[in-house]
Amino acid sequence: MTYCCGILVRDGLVMIADTRTNAGLDNISTFRKLHVFEQPGERVLMLAAAGNLSVTQGVLNFLKEGFENPETKEIESALTAPTMLKAAQFVGKAVRRARAEAFDPSDQTNGVSFDVTMLLGGQIKGSEPRLFMIYSAGNSIECSQDTNYLQIGEHKYGKPILDRAANYDSDIYDALKIGLISMDSTIKSNLSVGLPIDVALLRKDSMELEVQTRIDAGDEYFRDLRERWSKALRAAHMAIPAPPYRGREK
Amino acid sequence: MTYCCGILVRDGLVMIADTRTNAGLDNISTFRKLHVFEQPGERVLMLAAAGNLSVTQGVLNFLKEGFENPETKEIESALTAPTMLKAAQFVGKAVRRARAEAFDPSDQTNGVSFDVTMLLGGQIKGSEPRLFMIYSAGNSIECSQDTNYLQIGEHKYGKPILDRAANYDSDIYDALKIGLISMDSTIKSNLSVGLPIDVALLRKDSMELEVQTRIDAGDEYFRDLRERWSKALRAAHMAIPAPPYRGREK
Repeated sequence: MTYCCGILVRDGLVMIADTRTNAGLDNISTFRKLHVFEQPGERVLMLAAAGNLSVTQGVLNFLKEGFENPETKEIESALTAPTMLKAAQFVGKAVRRARAEAFDPSDQTNGVSFDVTMLLGGQIKGSEPRLFMIYSAGNSIECSQDTNYLQIGEHKYGKPILDRAANYDSDIYDALKIGLISMDSTIKSNLSVGLPIDVALLRKDSMELEVQTRIDAGDEYFRDLRERWSKALRAAHMAIPAPPYRGREK
Repeated sequence: MTYCCGILVRDGLVMIADTRTNAGLDNISTFRKLHVFEQPGERVLMLAAAGNLSVTQGVLNFLKEGFENPETKEIESALTAPTMLKAAQFVGKAVRRARAEAFDPSDQTNGVSFDVTMLLGGQIKGSEPRLFMIYSAGNSIECSQDTNYLQIGEHKYGKPILDRAANYDSDIYDALKIGLISMDSTIKSNLSVGLPIDVALLRKDSMELEVQTRIDAGDEYFRDLRERWSKALRAAHMAIPAPPYRGREK
């Protein structure tokens, strides 16, 4: 399983992804799920992936090497797309191709899912930072100011804190903090999501990543955040008065 | 969708269920999902159900009316089972029968799920309070002191607070409060789980419900709990220092 989220704020974009992959419960590995394509001063693209690892790697290879646009006969890649929307569409095409290469649709017997879901966030010079989710079918949706985050993978455990705390006017480091709390809730409840966590923070118009780091089990700040959050939740529920209900009412 | 949870503590048992049912997103109704079978002084059984409503009602009818045990030729029902384990096994049999009556297995075309999952909690005189989860196949698992709660339906949003706060030595009204916070998190993130909420609290050896009530949108305490919890979560995340990460590390 996987948990990745992207949070879009007025000042930029934060993306967070875990690194645990599994083929069955007894075959667990660490793979990077957050990938950066960057031309400093020109474009920063961040891609997070959940789902079939083989298809994901196929998509990444297409993004790096590009493929020919049948109409223009030109080689397109993530680094040549003129806008974020075109880049998202390119990722959608790459997903379709990678899935088509990964399996034989007439083979219905192996029970493996070749689905992938991806988040593509970033900024290309001359336009705003944007964040997209690309589905297995190759189609996509875009994050908006109303709901300023997108999640892929095991999204439920970490959604309540995003729903309550994340908004478009949040400070960008506050958004990063909220994302890390969301990741903590997911790691706590689902063993198939695990450390280390990759983090990227792109400040609007800076055209290069302001933060790109990996948080592992020894990370002081993340350990402190987890402890404070646990303590605060305990204190919060203890501070709520006991239920007054007694007897049979209905 | 549905959310129900049961929490077992040293002093007894709490069960909580929402009441929202839907047949498609555009057909939403209110149905009781928490049912009580009681012989004061003798037994208190509480059954919560998630899944197909028609199968659920079939199960309830079997529990009330009973059916013949092919071996003993006697009519068995939830009110005649001599132990909680036998009662859970009876619910399992009732689930199998109700599913068998609800659909024709040769009809693979309608796409409707006839699955149900149930929680059965309670106490029968002479033994401890026990809590079981009964699956669609009719098999069951029992709640233990190590993980002292069981959930059915949309369980993920409300699981983190249970994992952090619920334990077997909790005060029984504290367990009720934790259950209500868990329900609040679920209602907040999943529209298909909704008020009113049915609540039952059984104190060990009292052999009758100490609380049986319905919490609706006008309920003062629940409104206050939701507000306090929201405020506490906001305060908790704001009290955590900002992430110290800067620059490119890895």
